[in-house]
Amino acid sequence: MTYRVAILGASGYTGAELVRLLATHPDLRIVALSADRKAGQSMAEVFPFLRHLDLPRLVKIDEIDFSGVDLCFCALPHATTQAVIAGLPRDLKIVDLSADFRLRDPAEYEKWYGQPHAAVEVQKEAVYGLTEFYREEIRKGRLVAGTGCNAATGQYALRPLIAAGVINLDDIVIDLKAGVSGAGRSLKENLLHAELSGGTHSYSAGGKHRHLGEFDQEFSKIAGRPVRVQFTPHLLPMNRGILATVYVKGDPNAVHATLATAYADEPFLKVLPFGALPSTRDIAGSNFCHIGVIGDRIPGRAVVVAVLDNLTKGSSGQAIQNANLMLGIEETTGLMLAPVFP
Amino acid sequence: MTYRVAILGASGYTGAELVRLLATHPDLRIVALSADRKAGQSMAEVFPFLRHLDLPRLVKIDEIDFSGVDLCFCALPHATTQAVIAGLPRDLKIVDLSADFRLRDPAEYEKWYGQPHAAVEVQKEAVYGLTEFYREEIRKGRLVAGTGCNAATGQYALRPLIAAGVINLDDIVIDLKAGVSGAGRSLKENLLHAELSGGTHSYSAGGKHRHLGEFDQEFSKIAGRPVRVQFTPHLLPMNRGILATVYVKGDPNAVHATLATAYADEPFLKVLPFGALPSTRDIAGSNFCHIGVIGDRIPGRAVVVAVLDNLTKGSSGQAIQNANLMLGIEETTGLMLAPVFP
Amino acid sequence: MTYRVAILGASGYTGAELVRLLATHPDLRIVALSADRKAGQSMAEVFPFLRHLDLPRLVKIDEIDFSGVDLCFCALPHATTQAVIAGLPRDLKIVDLSADFRLRDPAEYEKWYGQPHAAVEVQKEAVYGLTEFYREEIRKGRLVAGTGCNAATGQYALRPLIAAGVINLDDIVIDLKAGVSGAGRSLKENLLHAELSGGTHSYSAGGKHRHLGEFDQEFSKIAGRPVRVQFTPHLLPMNRGILATVYVKGDPNAVHATLATAYADEPFLKVLPFGALPSTRDIAGSNFCHIGVIGDRIPGRAVVVAVLDNLTKGSSGQAIQNANLMLGIEETTGLMLAPVFP
Amino acid sequence: MTYRVAILGASGYTGAELVRLLATHPDLRIVALSADRKAGQSMAEVFPFLRHLDLPRLVKIDEIDFSGVDLCFCALPHATTQAVIAGLPRDLKIVDLSADFRLRDPAEYEKWYGQPHAAVEVQKEAVYGLTEFYREEIRKGRLVAGTGCNAATGQYALRPLIAAGVINLDDIVIDLKAGVSGAGRSLKENLLHAELSGGTHSYSAGGKHRHLGEFDQEFSKIAGRPVRVQFTPHLLPMNRGILATVYVKGDPNAVHATLATAYADEPFLKVLPFGALPSTRDIAGSNFCHIGVIGDRIPGRAVVVAVLDNLTKGSSGQAIQNANLMLGIEETTGLMLAPVFP
Repeated sequence: MTYRVAILGASGYTGAELVRLLATHPDLRIVALSADRKAGQSMAEVFPFLRHLDLPRLVKIDEIDFSGVDLCFCALPHATTQAVIAGLPRDLKIVDLSADFRLRDPAEYEKWYGQPHAAVEVQKEAVYGLTEFYREEIRKGRLVAGTGCNAATGQYALRPLIAAGVINLDDIVIDLKAGVSGAGRSLKENLLHAELSGGTHSYSAGGKHRHLGEFDQEFSKIAGRPVRVQFTPHLLPMNRGILATVYVKGDPNAVHATLATAYADEPFLKVLPFGALPSTRDIAGSNFCHIGVIGDRIPGRAVVVAVLDNLTKGSSGQAIQNANLMLGIEETTGLMLAPVFP
Repeated sequence: MTYRVAILGASGYTGAELVRLLATHPDLRIVALSADRKAGQSMAEVFPFLRHLDLPRLVKIDEIDFSGVDLCFCALPHATTQAVIAGLPRDLKIVDLSADFRLRDPAEYEKWYGQPHAAVEVQKEAVYGLTEFYREEIRKGRLVAGTGCNAATGQYALRPLIAAGVINLDDIVIDLKAGVSGAGRSLKENLLHAELSGGTHSYSAGGKHRHLGEFDQEFSKIAGRPVRVQFTPHLLPMNRGILATVYVKGDPNAVHATLATAYADEPFLKVLPFGALPSTRDIAGSNFCHIGVIGDRIPGRAVVVAVLDNLTKGSSGQAIQNANLMLGIEETTGLMLAPVFP
Repeated sequence: MTYRVAILGASGYTGAELVRLLATHPDLRIVALSADRKAGQSMAEVFPFLRHLDLPRLVKIDEIDFSGVDLCFCALPHATTQAVIAGLPRDLKIVDLSADFRLRDPAEYEKWYGQPHAAVEVQKEAVYGLTEFYREEIRKGRLVAGTGCNAATGQYALRPLIAAGVINLDDIVIDLKAGVSGAGRSLKENLLHAELSGGTHSYSAGGKHRHLGEFDQEFSKIAGRPVRVQFTPHLLPMNRGILATVYVKGDPNAVHATLATAYADEPFLKVLPFGALPSTRDIAGSNFCHIGVIGDRIPGRAVVVAVLDNLTKGSSGQAIQNANLMLGIEETTGLMLAPVFP
Repeated sequence: MTYRVAILGASGYTGAELVRLLATHPDLRIVALSADRKAGQSMAEVFPFLRHLDLPRLVKIDEIDFSGVDLCFCALPHATTQAVIAGLPRDLKIVDLSADFRLRDPAEYEKWYGQPHAAVEVQKEAVYGLTEFYREEIRKGRLVAGTGCNAATGQYALRPLIAAGVINLDDIVIDLKAGVSGAGRSLKENLLHAELSGGTHSYSAGGKHRHLGEFDQEFSKIAGRPVRVQFTPHLLPMNRGILATVYVKGDPNAVHATLATAYADEPFLKVLPFGALPSTRDIAGSNFCHIGVIGDRIPGRAVVVAVLDNLTKGSSGQAIQNANLMLGIEETTGLMLAPVFP
């Protein structure tokens, strides 16, 4: 059976990545694409790499007839998303890729995003979209809130360790290296090629990055008590990919065994042999996440390294994985594309 | 129906690209992979980005039982390929990705490759693998010789123009910009990141690049008289993609119309509206070739720009396209993957 | 003796490059820096790589007391420059890095820049700033108009050949590859790292690039009759550097000999041995221009390849070279910095 | 006064960087260059970016007449250096850029480098070359052992903190991001552009990187008791630059104040205002090191970020700084070149 999907916010990178992945998805068909400022244009004008596809023209959201839509991907900017989703038909399945419905506590939302939440009632029905840990809720969900890409990477490295109690919860450091597409197609001086290529720097350091809200919410829930991690992201001169180097205190072998066991049957999460560490090159363009564990020379300390593609497993691939579950399609459908290397 | 394929030379970039594309091909199944120096290893060791696939281990060629193989992709280095293919079963279908069987005239082979051809009889049955122009021969062929990646790019820009007689045959300049993966996974100082990134230079300039042999053979055949083009390749700090800027003398509108008409029904060759020129970013990772035409301010001169991915449409994607034809499968099967951007 | 200089427009790349070069210039001292939108900030805020220098704060132009300034570098945007320079003290020496005073004929200016020239009288005293060909005029000049960076590259390859009559003037093709810093620190989507890295495309093709105005003016003047070249620029994923591949018809040895002789005593222009071609990597960050010549396999055709750093020899280094001449300082002073490699 | 210097191992990146910096050094003149495998060639052949310089040809070491040499830079590979230096004239001043004389304890050398030290007597007179902390010993030294580039970066971030006792010595994590030129001009598959660009991975993780020997030696000496840090290096797709993110436990303001005070008069070490963090882009090509400090949201934790150019401040610039001291020249001579940006 073919399901009809719409994509709101199709002129950004996550919107385009949705279209790229859906181009070879056998069961989902794109019937509407919105992009407010570029309404009237074709996707080929906005993203010439999609030129070969037969796609609907970009329209404004209110031009879409949602009665013919089974599921809607919402790839709109943070903050504006709340009002849009609140206004969509009540029976429409929605996968949101913004940050607006990730935090269950409106106070936490206001703390990290600097303004009150505008759709608190809708928030209550949102399911957190980290597929492997919320499968059943997602299957039944109407609104699934995709995770932050950095937040997903850190959680894949840490959730089973926190749940199993094999690491010290008060001394976790996530040093993260992120490619630039995570910052979106936004016109900022520091995202120019001349500014970014050939160098690196940290950003939102010192506990200021918004994805900490997701870490706090999820890790504390698992642990049953507050957990606060240290998190320092860095911007790297690469387009796709996140590498999280996670410093934990615990027995390295137990850390590895816990992750290997937890993910043994996961189609997209691959734990490497003990001592082997992954590279972002090996997952670029794909929905896979590779995780490695090594012990430090200092006994009782381990380093976990997780990599994924921020645009795929970190957002649009994850979104389709969740949509598959919500529509009753086999979870991996359309997502087994191999990474692109070199 | 599922056909069983082998890949000889699976430890190079074109071999890995074949595996990447076949990973989601519904009708071809990899039953053997060879790599002489890496025999005994798994593909996951040689190319960790293929870790998620269930693949046969790498073996030496003589360990392969070809009786269970329907078609063999041969991605071995130039020169060594001739002896290998001469020794394969006579009834095995073969798609060769090396340069060894591209030139029909053994004297031309010796001129461009510096040594006599070692399998002249086998050469006689080879079909030149530029799919769109040799479809019928490829369908019936036993041995198809994949084109050079630069040679393919230049030919897509020029073949219809030469055939239609709309350009001056004695004044054609191909200025080509190529990504580095075309040079293979070879340990050369000038391919190091520190040497290559952030700069550009020409190579094999002055009429010395071996793909000129293909241009000479094909263009002269089309024109019915010798055609010699000027060809200057440049190496760019990018991994995938070729952009050929082709300077021709002829009416720009006729040039555009000729190409647009010739490729109107081609699934992978996209001619842009007159005046629009393509980017390599828009075809990376895909089997598409985009072509644009613009008129110069000097009347009677046109510039044709063609782009394709050297590893896909320029070699491994082309190889699968040809294999599809040889096996009676729909030509585009497994090849409609969208480009990866950004 | 130390001369006092001001830089107008110090918040752009060419302004910053002037500061970088002047940081180790023994005879010039920066006494004023302007940047309208960033007035009040320090250079360390706008360009942290200049943090170690003791520099005046950024101010608005009208805050500068030009009575204490010997020479003014003007690195302002095109079009706004005319009015600014027209308003500067009549006895102030000026090196302009914009396009505003490069074209001697106001009609040509209007044709290429789309609006009438606003300071036609000032234009009359402007000297074209291609140092090696206008040394005497520059020495005596009050206002020197720096060349376009692409225009400089093409002229270094071609001027002596046109002057010597060794090439066909009606069949010159300049295929140019340019790094992205030439586009400036401007917020444009196609200059983002995610859009630009890993690929290439042509721009302003078909005879539309404004630097053609300079080629037309200069080549026609040398030849004593109209000369129109073909010029296709391409944007490359690199920050600094221009490589011009110039296709000419003429005897390759005569072409090489003409260039080698013309530049034999030039401190910054290096002609390579016949058959050797240059790389942009070998001039990045320096004021040098490397030029190579090779013959094509087609008799009577030669390829000239010239490389320079668009920010140094193509603009700010050239500007200082001209300033040295105007102030009676040895021409190479402060400019013998070696390129940075890798 | 002009001093005559020789460079042994001039065909590697640190050798070339020495030449680049010495090109504009007013007091040092290169009188001999060695490169065993490339003896007989000119530097312009091996490094065309040095084409404009008038340099001695490359020779074998035993062809050099050291009687005319005041100081010798030794940029040879690790391990082979020991025998070479042991064989040089006893009265020759030497700055070594290899790892061979950095570790004072021969047992430590054997532990980290896997073989016994071959010149234990010479080792005894070696001074560790971290200029700002060994100035007096370097002034009087005959043999100065340049530090590891990663080791220098970590030490600039940590030495004053350990000395002042403002951080917990048992919980220091150095997460380091390094550009690829630090790996040298060696032909390794993982250093190819196609393998390296566009991605990142860790290497020598888990306490295996050799620069840990330097950290252990120096930090333990300062603290007066064993100090063992955690150190995880990552390779980034950039040519120059190291960024060390150092996680410490201590009062952030005390950490900042300690560093700011310690380096207040240092010409090359720049501590940013509290809360500002540096970028590798701002020191590339220069001898500067920028250091920033920020407090984490978790009280009592600070993050120190230090950046330097591995080829300059991390090796060849440091070497010249030390040579200046050894020869009685002003320490900053020839080293005030501004970074190159963009």
